[in-house]
Amino acid sequence: MKGQTIFFKNRPKIVAVSTVAGTKECKGIVGRYVETALQDDMFGESTYEKAECKMLSHVIDGAITNAGLKRDEVDMLVSGDLLNQIISASFAARDFSVPFLGVYGACSTMAESLAVAATFIDGGYARRVVAATGSHFASAERQYRYPLELGCTRPPQSQWTVTGAGAALLASEGDGITVSAATLGKVVDYGITDVNNMGAAMAPAAADTILTHFRLTREDPSDYDMIVTGDLGALGSRILKDLTWEKGLDIGVNHVDCGEIIYNVIEDEFQGGSGAGCSAVVLNSYLYSKMMTGGLKKILFVATGALLSTVSSGQGESIPCIAHAVVLER
Amino acid sequence: MKGQTIFFKNRPKIVAVSTVAGTKECKGIVGRYVETALQDDMFGESTYEKAECKMLSHVIDGAITNAGLKRDEVDMLVSGDLLNQIISASFAARDFSVPFLGVYGACSTMAESLAVAATFIDGGYARRVVAATGSHFASAERQYRYPLELGCTRPPQSQWTVTGAGAALLASEGDGITVSAATLGKVVDYGITDVNNMGAAMAPAAADTILTHFRLTREDPSDYDMIVTGDLGALGSRILKDLTWEKGLDIGVNHVDCGEIIYNVIEDEFQGGSGAGCSAVVLNSYLYSKMMTGGLKKILFVATGALLSTVSSGQGESIPCIAHAVVLER
Repeated sequence: MKGQTIFFKNRPKIVAVSTVAGTKECKGIVGRYVETALQDDMFGESTYEKAECKMLSHVIDGAITNAGLKRDEVDMLVSGDLLNQIISASFAARDFSVPFLGVYGACSTMAESLAVAATFIDGGYARRVVAATGSHFASAERQYRYPLELGCTRPPQSQWTVTGAGAALLASEGDGITVSAATLGKVVDYGITDVNNMGAAMAPAAADTILTHFRLTREDPSDYDMIVTGDLGALGSRILKDLTWEKGLDIGVNHVDCGEIIYNVIEDEFQGGSGAGCSAVVLNSYLYSKMMTGGLKKILFVATGALLSTVSSGQGESIPCIAHAVVLER
Repeated sequence: MKGQTIFFKNRPKIVAVSTVAGTKECKGIVGRYVETALQDDMFGESTYEKAECKMLSHVIDGAITNAGLKRDEVDMLVSGDLLNQIISASFAARDFSVPFLGVYGACSTMAESLAVAATFIDGGYARRVVAATGSHFASAERQYRYPLELGCTRPPQSQWTVTGAGAALLASEGDGITVSAATLGKVVDYGITDVNNMGAAMAPAAADTILTHFRLTREDPSDYDMIVTGDLGALGSRILKDLTWEKGLDIGVNHVDCGEIIYNVIEDEFQGGSGAGCSAVVLNSYLYSKMMTGGLKKILFVATGALLSTVSSGQGESIPCIAHAVVLER
């Protein structure tokens, strides 16, 4: 570790992925790339939470199968999600008889779990690790905002939690996408208290991690084909570009935000997608495909998370945020 | 990693600790050993959740100070807690400008964070990492059961969530307690649905991890001075001893449960203490002291966690549990 950045000398690789996405999500850019396109966002379950858990279990199983492995050949599962007590991940882990590390980084979970998985493999502590996360629009609305049945109006600065899940199987050997470095984020809080404006809350955390990453690696945005943030949305992405530009770093040319691109512009989503499933689905379907066959060589994947709860907001607290970055190379 | 067990060749060490505990806790065995004994369980804050967060922040700061370090000399903080969205850990992390990995393992968090911290140090990815967790009786009751103000009667199989927090500073160099191995647990669910009977729910997970640990390390309980579980309580401890004995492993002689010993027997606590703070306080005060100066040479520290939520229980789910084990040697 040099400052906040870990360089993986043994080059752990993502050798297989799996994704599932909801009906609304599949109308957008990821529709052609996801492995399982849901016809029904309940996924045959009786509750939103059970549907979310089933999606996560489904992609973990999918990644293992796509790698040509059996469940008992996996050394570890690193996973978390947005629900209280990360029940989607915990209950999904129950289906697999595999050592489980539960993590919580809100919507930064895909990057956090990739970084932890890569560290365990790079250090020789594990050979094959699944990193996975997901989210569900209806369970997130019920827990963080209002149950859908209330029919509340959503404000224009809000984002739409993605219904979907993604898993990546990392291994010490095999063909795939190399995880060559990771920059672990610090908690950053600019004092935003509007729980509907996650993009504005998370942008400073993304800026902090990105600036730190380029300072420590002595790289330049032009060294990357793409700098991909998780779910800042349209407004958050603009704030991020301003914040980095102010510090002398211009990421405007090759910055893309998963939340900004996941939906075709329809009025409901306002600033775009969000949720742990947002960057998990875009990375493990669209971006994975573009890296494996589409000529995309090197990306900086920066997933961002807002670490608030309804209790902290209710007690007048602002929103602490975090962003973890992972360098992916083909 | 051999199966579920990691052996740390570079022998990362716990070089400093810090603990804080509530008024009720300090009347018991840990009273003489905790660094900060609270006179008031609110710790000068206006809400239970803010008090819990302040405790966690207090011990993280304490461990760094006790190690003779400054905050910017710490490479990473690994922490989690019982509150939704682990707000105690996330908000405590905001006070420290240090890379943060949020983890969730319910009451197994002390062992999970120790295992992750030790892995990052052993692999050379970090030199100094703080592992910390805590809990607060009143915030846990409000979130998982009923607000204290309702005055609900507690059933006899229940445990009392510990008000307290503990932090350990792990380093690649220095004098202290060596973390020599860790066995990462799988999620185990025996179908218990009684949310007041955590001991019975968690005992099978503890048994699974302990049996696996002794099978993979080819060690015997007599190789340890003590086998310490986190917060099974009196009933859960009896179930654990039965489950391991059935499989031919007798841990009866040197098994101790933090939940069982933390309180003097008073009627209110029924089966004893619980909560992430329970094993965190006992390990980082009483056990740390006994290892440093009291002749205790080698212990197996097995913290257990119940991965339920009020939503999962409300939807009729049983309680999946996990236990992570860490070998500590002086």
